[in-house]
Amino acid sequence: MSQKEKAQKASDLAKLLGAEMLGDDTSIKRLSDSASVQADSIVVLGKAEDAKKLRQRPGALVLNQALEGWGTQLIVKDTRLALALLSQVFGLEPSFAKGIHPTAVIHETAQLAEDVQIAAHVVIAENALIGSGTQIGANCYFGANVTVGKNCTVYPGVTVYPESRIADRVRLHAGVVIGSDGFGYARGPRGAVKIQHLGSVTIEDDVEVGANTCIDRGTLGETVIGARSKIDNLCQIGHNVQIGSDCLIAGTVAIAGSTSLGRGVILGGGAGVVDHVHIADGAQVGARSLVTKSIPAGESWNGYPAEPYKKYVRKHYLLGKLERIWQSVKEN
Amino acid sequence: MSQKEKAQKASDLAKLLGAEMLGDDTSIKRLSDSASVQADSIVVLGKAEDAKKLRQRPGALVLNQALEGWGTQLIVKDTRLALALLSQVFGLEPSFAKGIHPTAVIHETAQLAEDVQIAAHVVIAENALIGSGTQIGANCYFGANVTVGKNCTVYPGVTVYPESRIADRVRLHAGVVIGSDGFGYARGPRGAVKIQHLGSVTIEDDVEVGANTCIDRGTLGETVIGARSKIDNLCQIGHNVQIGSDCLIAGTVAIAGSTSLGRGVILGGGAGVVDHVHIADGAQVGARSLVTKSIPAGESWNGYPAEPYKKYVRKHYLLGKLERIWQSVKEN
Amino acid sequence: MSQKEKAQKASDLAKLLGAEMLGDDTSIKRLSDSASVQADSIVVLGKAEDAKKLRQRPGALVLNQALEGWGTQLIVKDTRLALALLSQVFGLEPSFAKGIHPTAVIHETAQLAEDVQIAAHVVIAENALIGSGTQIGANCYFGANVTVGKNCTVYPGVTVYPESRIADRVRLHAGVVIGSDGFGYARGPRGAVKIQHLGSVTIEDDVEVGANTCIDRGTLGETVIGARSKIDNLCQIGHNVQIGSDCLIAGTVAIAGSTSLGRGVILGGGAGVVDHVHIADGAQVGARSLVTKSIPAGESWNGYPAEPYKKYVRKHYLLGKLERIWQSVKEN
Repeated sequence: MSQKEKAQKASDLAKLLGAEMLGDDTSIKRLSDSASVQADSIVVLGKAEDAKKLRQRPGALVLNQALEGWGTQLIVKDTRLALALLSQVFGLEPSFAKGIHPTAVIHETAQLAEDVQIAAHVVIAENALIGSGTQIGANCYFGANVTVGKNCTVYPGVTVYPESRIADRVRLHAGVVIGSDGFGYARGPRGAVKIQHLGSVTIEDDVEVGANTCIDRGTLGETVIGARSKIDNLCQIGHNVQIGSDCLIAGTVAIAGSTSLGRGVILGGGAGVVDHVHIADGAQVGARSLVTKSIPAGESWNGYPAEPYKKYVRKHYLLGKLERIWQSVKEN
Repeated sequence: MSQKEKAQKASDLAKLLGAEMLGDDTSIKRLSDSASVQADSIVVLGKAEDAKKLRQRPGALVLNQALEGWGTQLIVKDTRLALALLSQVFGLEPSFAKGIHPTAVIHETAQLAEDVQIAAHVVIAENALIGSGTQIGANCYFGANVTVGKNCTVYPGVTVYPESRIADRVRLHAGVVIGSDGFGYARGPRGAVKIQHLGSVTIEDDVEVGANTCIDRGTLGETVIGARSKIDNLCQIGHNVQIGSDCLIAGTVAIAGSTSLGRGVILGGGAGVVDHVHIADGAQVGARSLVTKSIPAGESWNGYPAEPYKKYVRKHYLLGKLERIWQSVKEN
Repeated sequence: MSQKEKAQKASDLAKLLGAEMLGDDTSIKRLSDSASVQADSIVVLGKAEDAKKLRQRPGALVLNQALEGWGTQLIVKDTRLALALLSQVFGLEPSFAKGIHPTAVIHETAQLAEDVQIAAHVVIAENALIGSGTQIGANCYFGANVTVGKNCTVYPGVTVYPESRIADRVRLHAGVVIGSDGFGYARGPRGAVKIQHLGSVTIEDDVEVGANTCIDRGTLGETVIGARSKIDNLCQIGHNVQIGSDCLIAGTVAIAGSTSLGRGVILGGGAGVVDHVHIADGAQVGARSLVTKSIPAGESWNGYPAEPYKKYVRKHYLLGKLERIWQSVKEN
């Protein structure tokens, strides 16, 4: 995403952030990090003392406490939220096409809202629906009977298998695959017999899916990604997985078939979850942990296999005592 | 995949499954799971007692034992195999194109069987061969001298590097990459020197490869995926890996270069295997295990690093005793 | 990559390798491995004694010591480097197109060097720059303001997001995604608030990136892949990660946001690194290890979580004593 080229008044930004403004009402042209600060930048500092590391005074600082001698400051409670809000002010949404590119291949039965943007070489199959304000990057494929809601952003190279349902304001990054077959076979007399996957995928409102992530369709039922959940790059979501709303699933996570997540679950990077377990509301799983059983609501689990955080920490403490234990046992 | 809209007689389905039929010969219109059961559904239950959870009586039940008061029933030995067979009756294979789409770019020296389906924006390079009945989804690329056999299904966005050989009835899901270079470098005086990969990939009959999986070509020889083996999404198969027939490789598995698998090997989700080891016929590896040495035929290994299952279980039992061990040692 | 069809004199190859040649000056037509040796092959053997396994005498052998009775031999110090150099002699670089394919969609403001090769269905957006000698495979996408240097090879199906900078002689394999948004959200009153990613990605000279790997753009600053670093397939490189020069990053590695690697760092297959740590020059991390803290220069770490190699080995030795420890404690 590029930066918008449009100056903003510090006081307007303060209003947006619900911030108290100190100092002059400067004109801000860009959002910068500490390394690239310029005289017309606004810079958000998680820790106020990091101001010392700035090589020059920016047009305005966003801080959670006032800092003497640093000019214009916007004082907020939550600097991370301030960063997110400012990034939306200064960021320019991608624009993939003006209308429908002539090289796009769109089936005559597909229904596209009037204001969609469809880039070059996109293919949209029979009876697909694309909602108002949605933009689709180059080389994407939407299978038969797919529905895509309003104001979605689909980056280039995305494949959506037939029957998948995508709601509003969903963001799919490059290379995402939605609705591929799950890994299901029966043992037959002459080798594995494929279980054809007749189910589908539903992606609810405001979901974001990272690059090259795969979400398999249900065997007969549905795989569901709940509203406002965010999935990072290179994740594998198995058939019939149910992910609740407001979950955060970091990069390279893998969730096996028919497992369910409640609301607000957080899975750290590279976590794995076996099939047919339930991770309840608000539970958190540490990076690279392997979840082999269901996790109660609100608990934090870690490890291989995963266990409650306190047990995990205690086990690592005890493992650190192994040398002493061994010396003591050897002597006896 | 969508459901075919064609009614089937329960007695015909019983014949297909080799099942004993109890009750009336109903007309079945769809294959459903428990959650979406309708009056004209056939429903397969792994456990007969799950019938209680159905909100209505389906047109027919498939069970491994008769259930009083549940109408038409098909009694089978293996309900999972029954599900697979029924899924093939009710599933509709995708149809990507009628013939060759005019936007496909096909080199004049490529040879395509008369009845192939080639979707929009596919590129097929010089001397490639595409066999009878094969269908290729949008935006795929087949490099020079690639051969694809009969009745293959290639989903959109697949890239097949030059020289790769794909046999019959192979299914490649969206985003698969076949024949990319392996990770091979020598240390030169001015940094890494690339080992060009002049080898190739052979994929035998009836293999299925999941979305966004990568299979590297051999350095000089071949990477081989044996007949009827199934590979799930987002797997990494290194250069010169030899996978035997009838293997099952679950999602996000990674197999490093020159490692070989015998026949019927099962690798659980996210398992990793280092280079140059051999996993012999019928061996099984647990989810997220890291295999660092060769595994004898028929054994089950687990853990990080992986060890025989009994040793793995015993180690976890002993780790559970660490607290007591530590208390005992501390007191002495 | 295919083999060039051009005979080479053994003496010329010896010169290239800086090798001592023994025996006749034979004519060599191909580079083969042990399994596919032919009378006109050159074969590189890591261990001289493997010559016994050859089913026929090749045109020339490359060895690190002379072997009696084996005809023409090229004696080198480093057989792996010899393999790399020979692979470049016999390998034929791909050629994706003659000039610019008529189906490519190139914005009028994009600037392409005269001798670029742009294959079918490529899309190049406004103000992108593509340097001399660069070749781009089918179905790739280059966003606005992307720059690509000289003599790069981009395989099919690659997506490069706007603003990314790619230097000279970079090789991107199929399905690579450069510049996707990082996984960054703030907690807002109505769920996660996206942090728009206004930063970019810089890929320096001579980098190679494996198939389906994702490299996220910086939040406000840059994600950097240093010169001559090599990244294998299916890796995840988070936002603002800084990778130094000459690093080797094996398949399915995941590096979380803002982490940095020095020069010459080696990460084994499937290693994970948490955010905001530093792995210093020359450090090495074992396969599937999880790095949770910074690693000093030159150290080798392993394990889950990773620790210095000696500690890791000692811990595994002590874990092997658990049975004896438990028996001893039980008796007391």
